[in-house]
Amino acid sequence: MITSTGNGKIKDLVRLKKSAKERAKNGVFLVEGPKMFREIPRGLCLEVYGSETFFLTQEGAAARKKADADGIGVQTVSDAVFRYLSDTQSPQGILAVVKQLRYGQRDLTGGAIPLIVALENLQDPGNLGTILRTAEAAGATGILLSQGCADIYNPKVIRSTMGSIFRVPFVYTEDLEDAIAGLKEQGVRVLAAHLEGSVGLYEESFTAPTALLIGNESRGLTDETAALADQAVRIPMSGRVESLNAAVATAVCLFEAKRQRDLPAQE
Amino acid sequence: MITSTGNGKIKDLVRLKKSAKERAKNGVFLVEGPKMFREIPRGLCLEVYGSETFFLTQEGAAARKKADADGIGVQTVSDAVFRYLSDTQSPQGILAVVKQLRYGQRDLTGGAIPLIVALENLQDPGNLGTILRTAEAAGATGILLSQGCADIYNPKVIRSTMGSIFRVPFVYTEDLEDAIAGLKEQGVRVLAAHLEGSVGLYEESFTAPTALLIGNESRGLTDETAALADQAVRIPMSGRVESLNAAVATAVCLFEAKRQRDLPAQE
Repeated sequence: MITSTGNGKIKDLVRLKKSAKERAKNGVFLVEGPKMFREIPRGLCLEVYGSETFFLTQEGAAARKKADADGIGVQTVSDAVFRYLSDTQSPQGILAVVKQLRYGQRDLTGGAIPLIVALENLQDPGNLGTILRTAEAAGATGILLSQGCADIYNPKVIRSTMGSIFRVPFVYTEDLEDAIAGLKEQGVRVLAAHLEGSVGLYEESFTAPTALLIGNESRGLTDETAALADQAVRIPMSGRVESLNAAVATAVCLFEAKRQRDLPAQE
Repeated sequence: MITSTGNGKIKDLVRLKKSAKERAKNGVFLVEGPKMFREIPRGLCLEVYGSETFFLTQEGAAARKKADADGIGVQTVSDAVFRYLSDTQSPQGILAVVKQLRYGQRDLTGGAIPLIVALENLQDPGNLGTILRTAEAAGATGILLSQGCADIYNPKVIRSTMGSIFRVPFVYTEDLEDAIAGLKEQGVRVLAAHLEGSVGLYEESFTAPTALLIGNESRGLTDETAALADQAVRIPMSGRVESLNAAVATAVCLFEAKRQRDLPAQE
């Protein structure tokens, strides 16, 4: 059992928790909590750490079994060391080192009718995680991210995805313009969510292959990126609200797409 | 100028920042940042504190003018003391003590066709603030909160509302069941957002006076409260997502209401 925060392994884990660069270098990320642990697909889990108390519980036994099935052992750490490791205020006793997921841009357009969310410089990890979770629920086929977005492997993102991180393909692109051009070549219609869009959300059709551009929390889309869209779309708003939260705006657009796509075909 | 964190006024402000009880006892709350400060309606602002540096800026001069117009002075604090006071990591130099807003349940049903959000035990301040902001944008007429909800005057809620706190009526109720019964008596149809709702969101009509019940982030609505609804409504979801974030679920329902209400009247 590891009982010291000075232990080399513990130091490595803290570095992985704190640094996007460290995660990228090692090609891994951290997954915390029994619920998220259960969601890890077979073969991706590399190391498992659990607190002394956690392994005495039923969930602890189940986690041990899952690790066994994956052919890896588990490492027990003292409760105090686990609290030190944890990224949450109420640690749930289990943390895994997981292989980063690798997708290509082609993976985003899977499914019968592609529905892609393209994020430009989205900064807030909670928003990013919520967008992944919402995107899966709305039937989006993939997420495209500019390099200026938050790191998707940030522990707070992972937590907010509630497991969608393992199910929604995503790709960071160094050249958003180029990536959008690629989508257009594949026949994807590109819409920009924009406060000054000339068309209202509910007048736009989402039934064809579609990509939705979403900008930074406070600055929105850059003019250059907005200009790449086939159409700028405005969410109609009552009251004196200037804008919506980025995750909320994404949700409202994606669920309008889902609503339209789920409508029974009309004669 | 106040230069010590030991100053009595500074101690009072920190208590107001940290404690819902202290805010309720004094009937006030704190509003931070120039943008939110500009939104404070005339007559509600009681005290204004700005950092030395802030009052040297153009925004600082504008804030001073607004305080003058309200017939109150401003108090300068040193930059170090302001950082100590601030609830944010990048303090923006201005903070006001503002009178709490007082509404009655009748205020929630204002407007031509009431659209009320009733929150049961919603815990996350960020979610609560985002729900207020979204509710205003979707044309909701008011928010009803159970006592188990987060304190709406929590600085993080205030910040996330982006000003909607001053424009959307809200009422805490000690007896949610009674309050819901009161809405029904006023002819309001009560819908529960529920994972097991028997009707899909897009099959439900929101054009009549409507209240939408939203539950706790992890546990959803209690069975007792869900049973009060005229109809439980399910947001259709793709993938393997178990539930949506509470603010996202609220947004998806409220904007469906807005979509239906904004449709041109059909023959």
